[in-house]
Amino acid sequence: MQDVPTFWSPRIAALQPYLPGEQPRIPRLIKLNTNENPYPPSPRAIDAVQRAAEEGLERYPDPESLALREAVAARHGLSSAQVFAGNGSDEVLAHAFFAFFQQAEPLLFVDVTYSFYKVYAQLYGIACELQPVDAALRVDFDALARRAAQGCGGIVVANPNAPTGIGASLVQIEQLLLACPQRVVLVDEAYVDFGGQSAIPLIARHPNLLVVQTLSKSRSLAGLRVGFACGQVPLIDGLVRVKNSFNSYPLDRLASAGAVAALEDEAWFEKTRDAVVHTREGLALQLEDLGFEVLPSQANFVFVRHPAHDAAVLAAALRERAVLVRHFRHPRIAQYLRISIGTRDQCAALVDALQQILQPATP
Amino acid sequence: MQDVPTFWSPRIAALQPYLPGEQPRIPRLIKLNTNENPYPPSPRAIDAVQRAAEEGLERYPDPESLALREAVAARHGLSSAQVFAGNGSDEVLAHAFFAFFQQAEPLLFVDVTYSFYKVYAQLYGIACELQPVDAALRVDFDALARRAAQGCGGIVVANPNAPTGIGASLVQIEQLLLACPQRVVLVDEAYVDFGGQSAIPLIARHPNLLVVQTLSKSRSLAGLRVGFACGQVPLIDGLVRVKNSFNSYPLDRLASAGAVAALEDEAWFEKTRDAVVHTREGLALQLEDLGFEVLPSQANFVFVRHPAHDAAVLAAALRERAVLVRHFRHPRIAQYLRISIGTRDQCAALVDALQQILQPATP
Repeated sequence: MQDVPTFWSPRIAALQPYLPGEQPRIPRLIKLNTNENPYPPSPRAIDAVQRAAEEGLERYPDPESLALREAVAARHGLSSAQVFAGNGSDEVLAHAFFAFFQQAEPLLFVDVTYSFYKVYAQLYGIACELQPVDAALRVDFDALARRAAQGCGGIVVANPNAPTGIGASLVQIEQLLLACPQRVVLVDEAYVDFGGQSAIPLIARHPNLLVVQTLSKSRSLAGLRVGFACGQVPLIDGLVRVKNSFNSYPLDRLASAGAVAALEDEAWFEKTRDAVVHTREGLALQLEDLGFEVLPSQANFVFVRHPAHDAAVLAAALRERAVLVRHFRHPRIAQYLRISIGTRDQCAALVDALQQILQPATP
Repeated sequence: MQDVPTFWSPRIAALQPYLPGEQPRIPRLIKLNTNENPYPPSPRAIDAVQRAAEEGLERYPDPESLALREAVAARHGLSSAQVFAGNGSDEVLAHAFFAFFQQAEPLLFVDVTYSFYKVYAQLYGIACELQPVDAALRVDFDALARRAAQGCGGIVVANPNAPTGIGASLVQIEQLLLACPQRVVLVDEAYVDFGGQSAIPLIARHPNLLVVQTLSKSRSLAGLRVGFACGQVPLIDGLVRVKNSFNSYPLDRLASAGAVAALEDEAWFEKTRDAVVHTREGLALQLEDLGFEVLPSQANFVFVRHPAHDAAVLAAALRERAVLVRHFRHPRIAQYLRISIGTRDQCAALVDALQQILQPATP
């Protein structure tokens, strides 16, 4: 701790920030490392942004993001008072940790999941208890529910889970909701549109359910930073209190306009989502043909390992061929690669590169 | 505390969130209540946004906002490592409170200033000590420096101050920096471009100085949510640690593109800034003719009171005439109105409305 600047709050020195996937500027890069959608957003979203740019950027946006919340509510059969909007789902998650999980008991989540959860917990001084996933990297919902029933500060689960892509059933989600009636169960559905089952229909029955989604993945708007949470009104009110104590206007005029238009273009959403899912299924088969084990994915990525090849070595070899995939240093998943689903051409190029690496042509 | 939802973290119930100025949808409203710029942003900023909308919104933005930080650095003679960018200066301020002011000793600021400071402090459990401004609503820098020298967790000053508009000299700012060498002095320069003197040139000499600015006011980009902080590298690193533990991508692609283009259009900046300053000087004289006391303003608003008319009554009467100004319920300033500088026509309409209210025509 010798190099800690005098001026920092003491807790800052102890933070271990989240490390996002790299965003390098390599020409002709095939970028399959940050789970972006390979297809552009709805042309209606781009139009809406361009129109909004001419309509009073000198004015503050609506601090309540009402138009966006109404669009989310309409799509999911909720009222706008049951929707909270934020500057990407990461901001929504951060506010949720602050609003609900600063409790006397520890927060529960699994040891292989979105690595930002432990960062939020550290940021706000929240004690955590990590439940191990099983050898197949599956969440043991029975064990998690039993532990929750003994008392906890809340539960966070990603469904589908990241970086595994494995989905949970609503029966499993409800098991957690019932085991933890006094605390919030946060279901992070960043990837749910690619084959998972959303827990939003459970909100009416469960006052402790908060569902978080993003427009970054299935709506192709990672560059716009829009996420939202759905839950009963007291949970949304808690998030609003935090937001209004942090930043009154988290969503700019352009992001809101683009997000509303994207949410209204169901046809574009379905077409691009179906293309990603179809490509994923094809890629999984090709990777299996190359000898990879491929976890069953309900997301826009696959999580794979090769029994005969070190994952870090493979990732480096792919990078040399201008193909970027994600490798995590976490010990339990150090032999896996997370590969975002690109276009068909991008996935074909990935498979070609892997073939060269795994089965080099003899001279 | 009977109605506090079970699910909230205990500290959420105690928060008293910031109340932004209202953003109503009244037709033909003359909106002088939230210090927006009455002029649109640089056409180059609008162009840049519209071009960026077609360039890969499906991809995440640069998590480090390097292009924007370089544009700020170039304008202010800094390196990009001395610049931090955020989703509006409110987010930058929130991160700064977290990074620097969670100390054993209380944070110092004056009792009449931007009311979000006490909200951030409350959010993060930071004890505060408020130094009273004098009867003329001026900050007593001697008293503040004397108090700081006894030990404090840091100092926050707005220069020019809000909602008074009164500016401080760099001698006064430096007095605080010298009195508080072990803690951060945050100078919030949201309004500095309208006549104040920026402390950025002091950064080279003072490792404890953090200067925060926004593009919302003088760059006419309130709708885009872009703010930044300047300081020596260890302070910027502290902010980066917090940001990377909260939201990796706080600035979307469009906001960064628009902000860079606006920062590069110095001619537009000067023309619109000069217009606001010129209108402010004219409005101040007209308000004095109507019997108002007008505090000397270096900002894009004036802070005024009328010895014979209650401020809340005046604000309500103006609202009936579709003119919105800001009235605060804080006891020390309950007889003042804060009036944002609009276009000449908007200010003329304000003066007309006040004439009708103060000197009603006899039948």
